[in-house]
Amino acid sequence: MNTFGKILTLTTFGESHGPAMGGVLDGVPAGVAVDLEALQHFVDRRRTGRGRGSSTRDEKDRVEVLSGIFQDKTLGTPIGFIVRNNDAHSDDYSEIARCFRPNHADYTWQAKYGIRDPRGGGRASARETVARVVAGGIAIQALAHIGITIESRVSQVGSSFGVAEMDQAILEAMSAGDTLGGIIECVIKGVPAGLGEPVFGKLHAQLAAAMMSIPSVHGFEYGDGFELASKRGSEVMDVFERRPDGSIGTVTNHSGGIQGGISNGEDIVMRIAFKPVPTLMRELTTIDSDGNPVILKPRGRHDACVLQRAMPIVESMAALVMLDNYLIKKTNVL
Amino acid sequence: MNTFGKILTLTTFGESHGPAMGGVLDGVPAGVAVDLEALQHFVDRRRTGRGRGSSTRDEKDRVEVLSGIFQDKTLGTPIGFIVRNNDAHSDDYSEIARCFRPNHADYTWQAKYGIRDPRGGGRASARETVARVVAGGIAIQALAHIGITIESRVSQVGSSFGVAEMDQAILEAMSAGDTLGGIIECVIKGVPAGLGEPVFGKLHAQLAAAMMSIPSVHGFEYGDGFELASKRGSEVMDVFERRPDGSIGTVTNHSGGIQGGISNGEDIVMRIAFKPVPTLMRELTTIDSDGNPVILKPRGRHDACVLQRAMPIVESMAALVMLDNYLIKKTNVL
Amino acid sequence: MNTFGKILTLTTFGESHGPAMGGVLDGVPAGVAVDLEALQHFVDRRRTGRGRGSSTRDEKDRVEVLSGIFQDKTLGTPIGFIVRNNDAHSDDYSEIARCFRPNHADYTWQAKYGIRDPRGGGRASARETVARVVAGGIAIQALAHIGITIESRVSQVGSSFGVAEMDQAILEAMSAGDTLGGIIECVIKGVPAGLGEPVFGKLHAQLAAAMMSIPSVHGFEYGDGFELASKRGSEVMDVFERRPDGSIGTVTNHSGGIQGGISNGEDIVMRIAFKPVPTLMRELTTIDSDGNPVILKPRGRHDACVLQRAMPIVESMAALVMLDNYLIKKTNVL
Amino acid sequence: MNTFGKILTLTTFGESHGPAMGGVLDGVPAGVAVDLEALQHFVDRRRTGRGRGSSTRDEKDRVEVLSGIFQDKTLGTPIGFIVRNNDAHSDDYSEIARCFRPNHADYTWQAKYGIRDPRGGGRASARETVARVVAGGIAIQALAHIGITIESRVSQVGSSFGVAEMDQAILEAMSAGDTLGGIIECVIKGVPAGLGEPVFGKLHAQLAAAMMSIPSVHGFEYGDGFELASKRGSEVMDVFERRPDGSIGTVTNHSGGIQGGISNGEDIVMRIAFKPVPTLMRELTTIDSDGNPVILKPRGRHDACVLQRAMPIVESMAALVMLDNYLIKKTNVL
Repeated sequence: MNTFGKILTLTTFGESHGPAMGGVLDGVPAGVAVDLEALQHFVDRRRTGRGRGSSTRDEKDRVEVLSGIFQDKTLGTPIGFIVRNNDAHSDDYSEIARCFRPNHADYTWQAKYGIRDPRGGGRASARETVARVVAGGIAIQALAHIGITIESRVSQVGSSFGVAEMDQAILEAMSAGDTLGGIIECVIKGVPAGLGEPVFGKLHAQLAAAMMSIPSVHGFEYGDGFELASKRGSEVMDVFERRPDGSIGTVTNHSGGIQGGISNGEDIVMRIAFKPVPTLMRELTTIDSDGNPVILKPRGRHDACVLQRAMPIVESMAALVMLDNYLIKKTNVL
Repeated sequence: MNTFGKILTLTTFGESHGPAMGGVLDGVPAGVAVDLEALQHFVDRRRTGRGRGSSTRDEKDRVEVLSGIFQDKTLGTPIGFIVRNNDAHSDDYSEIARCFRPNHADYTWQAKYGIRDPRGGGRASARETVARVVAGGIAIQALAHIGITIESRVSQVGSSFGVAEMDQAILEAMSAGDTLGGIIECVIKGVPAGLGEPVFGKLHAQLAAAMMSIPSVHGFEYGDGFELASKRGSEVMDVFERRPDGSIGTVTNHSGGIQGGISNGEDIVMRIAFKPVPTLMRELTTIDSDGNPVILKPRGRHDACVLQRAMPIVESMAALVMLDNYLIKKTNVL
Repeated sequence: MNTFGKILTLTTFGESHGPAMGGVLDGVPAGVAVDLEALQHFVDRRRTGRGRGSSTRDEKDRVEVLSGIFQDKTLGTPIGFIVRNNDAHSDDYSEIARCFRPNHADYTWQAKYGIRDPRGGGRASARETVARVVAGGIAIQALAHIGITIESRVSQVGSSFGVAEMDQAILEAMSAGDTLGGIIECVIKGVPAGLGEPVFGKLHAQLAAAMMSIPSVHGFEYGDGFELASKRGSEVMDVFERRPDGSIGTVTNHSGGIQGGISNGEDIVMRIAFKPVPTLMRELTTIDSDGNPVILKPRGRHDACVLQRAMPIVESMAALVMLDNYLIKKTNVL
Repeated sequence: MNTFGKILTLTTFGESHGPAMGGVLDGVPAGVAVDLEALQHFVDRRRTGRGRGSSTRDEKDRVEVLSGIFQDKTLGTPIGFIVRNNDAHSDDYSEIARCFRPNHADYTWQAKYGIRDPRGGGRASARETVARVVAGGIAIQALAHIGITIESRVSQVGSSFGVAEMDQAILEAMSAGDTLGGIIECVIKGVPAGLGEPVFGKLHAQLAAAMMSIPSVHGFEYGDGFELASKRGSEVMDVFERRPDGSIGTVTNHSGGIQGGISNGEDIVMRIAFKPVPTLMRELTTIDSDGNPVILKPRGRHDACVLQRAMPIVESMAALVMLDNYLIKKTNVL
């Protein structure tokens, strides 16, 4: 299950320290202008080395588009692309090849497949997301043509909520060899009413699946989310109003832009919770595949907090869902 | 998109006040014993009329299995079933056919399809979930054969956390013509390590999509969920241990039984947030399809809190995901 | 895999002698007028008892639509339907429950599932196709709204090619306790250029899969089909021409209306080969599940030739493919 | 729809004269030994330049595996791969960019997408199949581990049926600037009984879809195929027998190894009809996108007959279907 979406589908591949990451984005409508330079800039946003607390590994992550775009326009054919893994130091990881790192996927992948690529986490590495960002960047450009835009911000890092405070918290965690999680808030604007596919393809269910598939994500909510559990119905009623331009909207947006699984034209608002990075810059005791205790020494290059880099990933997954649903919506009428 | 799952697929149909709800559960392995009486009991758990604050509409909800089970065993063929809608009072809803009820799906369905069945919310009604519970009940029986069990409890109603307190809160909301939301916690036990399909079919991503497709759900988290956002990595490390029986497990379970999108053998723990019921027993001001203001008078029969009835729905969706992934796991080796 | 299609999906269920056959047709656009009486007439065309050489079992096959259609228009929601099995005489089949009838699916279903419903062939019975015809009948009505029509004819029965000759051949086969196969030719008219989804969803590949899924079908060809194997390229060139109305077409139609997997606006022409009915009205020697020889005595009611009854099935499967592709085509542009 | 399969999925991309062709083969079980050198040899079989009547374009077609295989074993992760397009002479095609070549897909792709890559047929080129052969080659190696083998032979070229005769016919067609079609017969051996997924995923329906998706294929039949149309039931009865080793088989194989859509353990036999190559080495009159007549002069390098090169493509598609169904079969039991 490395394919995502229904009409617009993204299939990805790649291990962290293999020759390349890549993907196939199929179902992009034909004739859509794509700015490849802007795409590269978007992909650069998730790159290692940006933001405080990020790892110093520099991959460059040059996107190589192999098909589906001709003379800067989409052909309607699948867009194949790769991003080479230039800068992998596999020997950094040789020591831990037999260890199960806590809060990583080493043990579960071994249990599932009986084999794994131990170099840099293999396919379980967050490096996998580079393919999502390439595809998402294309989807974002397509959505822009129809007036749908996606924004995200880091709204929480550890227990900090302001930019300066967050930076300080990350520096403190780093100096302690520790890591932090946080929350990203994502808002989708300009969405026409009518997108989403009940009953199993409700728009927020698709968005939840998209976000929960991002490494380290442990929670998803839209609109007032978990807060709604403690509210009375009368407190969170999004009353309809007729607007000066004749359109219908709601006075408040507790529903987060989605009602009954279908967009209502208001901003779609969601919050995504990330766990702290599992790789600490400290010695850790764990066990190896024989069940014997081993001590993991800190090695390699790792982020203390990934929230900053995760923003384009969140935006990308949101874009894939929105473009897919925009296309599916066309099939609702004869 | 009224089909859910990959190998085990559930397709549902039915409008609230049409002749029947129903579904097709395909991909159930052959030769599985099914106790139809126990299935009926399970379906009865979600029925109207149980639990404080529930509506008085009594549908009976007799399950009629039409195929796929022969002499109390599954045939490997699709299990078709229907549940008749016996007790619908369509005239209760005639007045509001042109209105857009706030926090309901009237407006969005109209925007999407240009047509809707206004009787009782049509397909947007939570009555749709009866088909999920029939299918889920069968999946639960199949899972029992392999030692996987699913439990759920209402852990919060409004701002109450204890049973007596919750009951009291519901009675107070009812008497005020108001409604309450809440949280259901669901635990899946006996799961072997190795279930889940990275990168897009991570087990928690599938569970999130499943839960978010249930009417009124606004939030999903697993393991320590949103709390992880404010924790340091060192605080939430699930350290591995070798257990007396030789198996490998974790000392704590902050990860909620899933690491890297794959089950690790610990209990799978998740929490699902429900918004308050949108139908109040009060007058509400809204607009009709022409944008003119109208006053909605309280009519019909509606729950003040659906959490109690939602438990078998949550368990059912969890069961569908788990059985599907159990089957898919078989294809990981030649 | 009892679901067919991508955007327009049909899921079917039902064993021959179970309570009912049925299906769910999902993805039909909203607001499409459906004439349920005409639908019943269409379904009647495949019913037992029509055409020479048909079995005398009379099922009535009354279609019961359970959802998705309201006031004679589609809602955009899944159309659930059932057809009761009224007239099954299960005891006719008790004797052969342990036998593997030659050229039937008894042995293979047993090998696959380890269990089967022996009554009337269970799900392997051609009775399964009644659900396809209900769904196909709805698709045909939808296609009519956009000018696409589907016709079929029996072009061959055994070695006969004319109606009177065919009838005579069937009578002769019947009197000999024997059966006949044949060929159905199906033509789809009014298809706009541009339908079909290369590379794996080529229109003819989808049509082939659709037709080959019909019981007893052993061959499929489109355009000049197998004859093309023995032709030179220069003999079968469909030269383009500009027509008086300004449109572009081809002078000949060796390609059968599809080029590169995409419709070109010409008639889509295909031929489907059916094997002879496997149930003879003669004694047959076979083996039982223990491998012991047994003699099967002719029992029950069976067709000597199913071609006549298969026409609406062929048309139905063609309609499902065409409507699905018509809808998918809408997603080719932003 | 550039993805094929259910559990084992192949997604392909690439235009004939773009940077590369490629694909992602997902769902290959973990731990399967893959011989990359043997894979390259298999891919070489479809390369330009082999067999009489083949084009002289030499692509080398070096397979570059980018993921999913580590130390010569599959990881269970998606196998991404590319094959560079080294030797494209795009200027050969510049003249015909605006023309619609007869029996090609120029017109239909333009009608569908409103845009196309005119260089070498773009994605409509048979060069697309190189990705299928890479994936198929891997599937063939996996199948070999479980005793399933696939063979094919060219059984007809034009109206010739013997090797020397076929070679002569191709030379004659070439010298006349003409082309030939033909038939490939494919046999799958060692198939266990029980593979195939009724009712819509019948094994032969999947094989038909697979074969019909290959460029130039116009017909498919299995077992006695179209001949069955003219036979009596009594003439084609595959009588069961108990074999010396205790297994059950059939004395004859008119059914072609599949009954009721499920393999019965006998050889699976199918025949695939190819139309003649549409590019003649002669002047052709056609029209351009404005509907004006133009004369196409023969240019570039083209095959007079592709049957020889199509064999590994047929085998590859067969292998993908068989491995997928072998895996799905595992899910038939709990």
